Amino acid sequence: MAGAAVLDALRAAVGAAHVRVDDDLSAYEVDWRKRYRGRALAVVRPASTAEVAAVVRACGASGTPIVTQGGNTGLVGASIPDPSGTQVVLSLTRMNRVRAIDAANLTMTTDAGCVLQAAQEAAESQGLLLALSLAAEGSCTIGGNLATNAGGTQVLRYGNAREQCLGLEVVTAAGEIWDGLSGLRKDNTGYALRDLYIGSEGTLGVITAATLKLHPQPVARCTALAALPTLDAAVALLQLAQAGLGAALTGFEVMGRQALALVRAHFPQRAQALPPAEWTVLLEQSDSESAAHAQAAFETLLEVALTRGLISDAAVASSAAQSKAMWHVRESIPLAQAAQGPNIKHDISLPISAITRFVTATDAALLRSFPGVRLVNFGHLGDGNLHYNVQPPDGVEAAAYLQAHETAVNKLVYDSVDAHAGSISAEHGIGALKRDELAQRKSPVALAQMRAIKRALDPQNLLNPGRLL
Amino acid sequence: MAGAAVLDALRAAVGAAHVRVDDDLSAYEVDWRKRYRGRALAVVRPASTAEVAAVVRACGASGTPIVTQGGNTGLVGASIPDPSGTQVVLSLTRMNRVRAIDAANLTMTTDAGCVLQAAQEAAESQGLLLALSLAAEGSCTIGGNLATNAGGTQVLRYGNAREQCLGLEVVTAAGEIWDGLSGLRKDNTGYALRDLYIGSEGTLGVITAATLKLHPQPVARCTALAALPTLDAAVALLQLAQAGLGAALTGFEVMGRQALALVRAHFPQRAQALPPAEWTVLLEQSDSESAAHAQAAFETLLEVALTRGLISDAAVASSAAQSKAMWHVRESIPLAQAAQGPNIKHDISLPISAITRFVTATDAALLRSFPGVRLVNFGHLGDGNLHYNVQPPDGVEAAAYLQAHETAVNKLVYDSVDAHAGSISAEHGIGALKRDELAQRKSPVALAQMRAIKRALDPQNLLNPGRLL
Repeated sequence: MAGAAVLDALRAAVGAAHVRVDDDLSAYEVDWRKRYRGRALAVVRPASTAEVAAVVRACGASGTPIVTQGGNTGLVGASIPDPSGTQVVLSLTRMNRVRAIDAANLTMTTDAGCVLQAAQEAAESQGLLLALSLAAEGSCTIGGNLATNAGGTQVLRYGNAREQCLGLEVVTAAGEIWDGLSGLRKDNTGYALRDLYIGSEGTLGVITAATLKLHPQPVARCTALAALPTLDAAVALLQLAQAGLGAALTGFEVMGRQALALVRAHFPQRAQALPPAEWTVLLEQSDSESAAHAQAAFETLLEVALTRGLISDAAVASSAAQSKAMWHVRESIPLAQAAQGPNIKHDISLPISAITRFVTATDAALLRSFPGVRLVNFGHLGDGNLHYNVQPPDGVEAAAYLQAHETAVNKLVYDSVDAHAGSISAEHGIGALKRDELAQRKSPVALAQMRAIKRALDPQNLLNPGRLL
Repeated sequence: MAGAAVLDALRAAVGAAHVRVDDDLSAYEVDWRKRYRGRALAVVRPASTAEVAAVVRACGASGTPIVTQGGNTGLVGASIPDPSGTQVVLSLTRMNRVRAIDAANLTMTTDAGCVLQAAQEAAESQGLLLALSLAAEGSCTIGGNLATNAGGTQVLRYGNAREQCLGLEVVTAAGEIWDGLSGLRKDNTGYALRDLYIGSEGTLGVITAATLKLHPQPVARCTALAALPTLDAAVALLQLAQAGLGAALTGFEVMGRQALALVRAHFPQRAQALPPAEWTVLLEQSDSESAAHAQAAFETLLEVALTRGLISDAAVASSAAQSKAMWHVRESIPLAQAAQGPNIKHDISLPISAITRFVTATDAALLRSFPGVRLVNFGHLGDGNLHYNVQPPDGVEAAAYLQAHETAVNKLVYDSVDAHAGSISAEHGIGALKRDELAQRKSPVALAQMRAIKRALDPQNLLNPGRLL
């Protein structure tokens, strides 16, 4: 089928108005960090699962590759077409409904294109909690969250996107619809197809809907900050908090001195409750009794930590507004980094028991090999997930520095991650950005199995080719 | 390779002493419910992952099918050889070590053949909790728990075996070793091979080790019983408890009148704290403060439930011994059933919002079609998981009744499960027992994908052929 014939088939599938070829398509062709700029044969915007299936069949008949896209907030170039102009972008943003909320079952079912925040708000309107929360929640979609197995700030208690999901609806590479939507918490009837599609970054099928777990809204959410002299002390505080607060501990974020210094420099209006320290931790507690109960538990915990010399200072939020302000500072770190200029980001995870050794060894090695770089380090310590970012030295031209050194910096960091039994992609995925790293670093046995699965489920290699594998 | 040559190759792989052919092999050839009686070519008992790989390669070279077996406590005939005498039983019981506990990372790594209770005790000895608990824990193994994605009594809070597992070591069908052991809570580097192997019942690879999540031991565990007039009231109590206790609610078991009557009849010495009721619920709370705090929370909750008319009576355990006694009664139900004689078991799950409708409709239909049958109903209501068992009418010869009616009873129950969007296997798996049901009832699109994956990962169909698919 020639290009024109494919477009005709796509128009027949979704209606001519929803096959875009002529306008400015940059919203679909450029990722939000502006590292990837592709060119699409067309952007197709189906309105239903049946239309998605028709699109996939039309592309299959013509051998046209498909790049599925949700909110286009990905960080690894997994949802941007390549520059060839031969790939169709399948945008799911018109499929944005909350299909149903089953309060008694604590589940909700949404279209894949439903924006995460809209899903959160729909749950909240019934007094329920969708416990997936990340920086991009105002524009990322449930389908994208699942395709990348998104993480975020509440994984410590509720797990990744994978653990939030009970069932999927998927259009297969053959254009068939698998209705695997399910509100069941136990279902051992065969292979974990759901989990295979989750995290497969659009390479095995097109997720069109999902059933997600909900929880009762906690009665109170309360945060606290603690200042610590070392990262080891932060790990010790985590253990103390997990033992003392149990499942009420829903957040444990760590922020390095440089990270908060950047926020001070770029957002001086955002008051920081504690003075600068080597490490600052934000703890969040979700309580089913009362705010007073949560605050009292924090105070008990932090007093013990002070007595043991783990922390040098602490502040417990005494209102929802104070909690929000503490989170606001934490969430400002990536924005402050962006304002500061280009830098080299590493979304990595380590066993929590290895984090201090990793940071000590890697910081030292980087400073030896790249004198003057600044290490902007923050992340979800409770999950072992660091955003371990490297900023060029003061006074050098950042873009040129990155061009000269990014590959070597990455190699040093990822070698150290491997040496400490960590992961080179904690929560952002592989996409185009880390595909070559994955091919070099992942176990050959695992890669062979992944490739066999890809061939089995997408024998024409039409779904997001060149990403992940 | 002829039979003798395979045996030679197996002896070379694991040592002659660990290839059993002549003795009484019934411990490996008969399942514990004694529904499946097979005959093995040999029972091979490797001592290491390398030996497992050598066994798989030897079997692959000779086209010999492999049935992997752990503690042989399965309920669906998934780990018993067929009667042909051509299948090798690969028993992992010699690989029973706890390899490591990483307290700071809250993880443990064990061999697949490690008995669940031994793993629980190893964790407990360091003040940590392995939160997987089921009736067979004294003899089932971690590998079997993962191969079947075992459930049990704490899924409500901690999830199934799948959610307890961070990493696996697997010998592939080609006899290669995949070292996917990982202590990482976030790791998005490719397809979820771990989750694919979990629940695949030995048909895709041989799990040889696993890294499992641990939790701090709760300060106190406390149980309560409540008597309820209807199943709807039990669902309402569940919602109330989830909202009021949050993640401290770690168990919510339901027991029907007939189930507890059987315990009274067969174990009169086991005191039941509440008089007979249509439904009795056992609630368990795990508290990170104190037993007194947990008891107070239970009392508040149960008072509200009484005031609302949800429950007619309640008892809160005031000691660990009383909690244990309450659990003991719950755990005696399957034993009382066994003592009563043969019955037809259904391990099913439903959306919690559909459970009452399901039970009402199915009870009525069964009593219409099979007058006099007794419905022995209990299970993990918090997970939507019922053990919905059907006992022959009083005075009939049970074995003959089952032979005459089991197929029709199953059809009625499973049709009703399908009509209520449930699962025909909540936590026991498919194995040989439900293979034909699965083929008839599962979505053809899902079955096609599962078969494609099976062909991709086990092209010779040597791993547990004839089970699951």
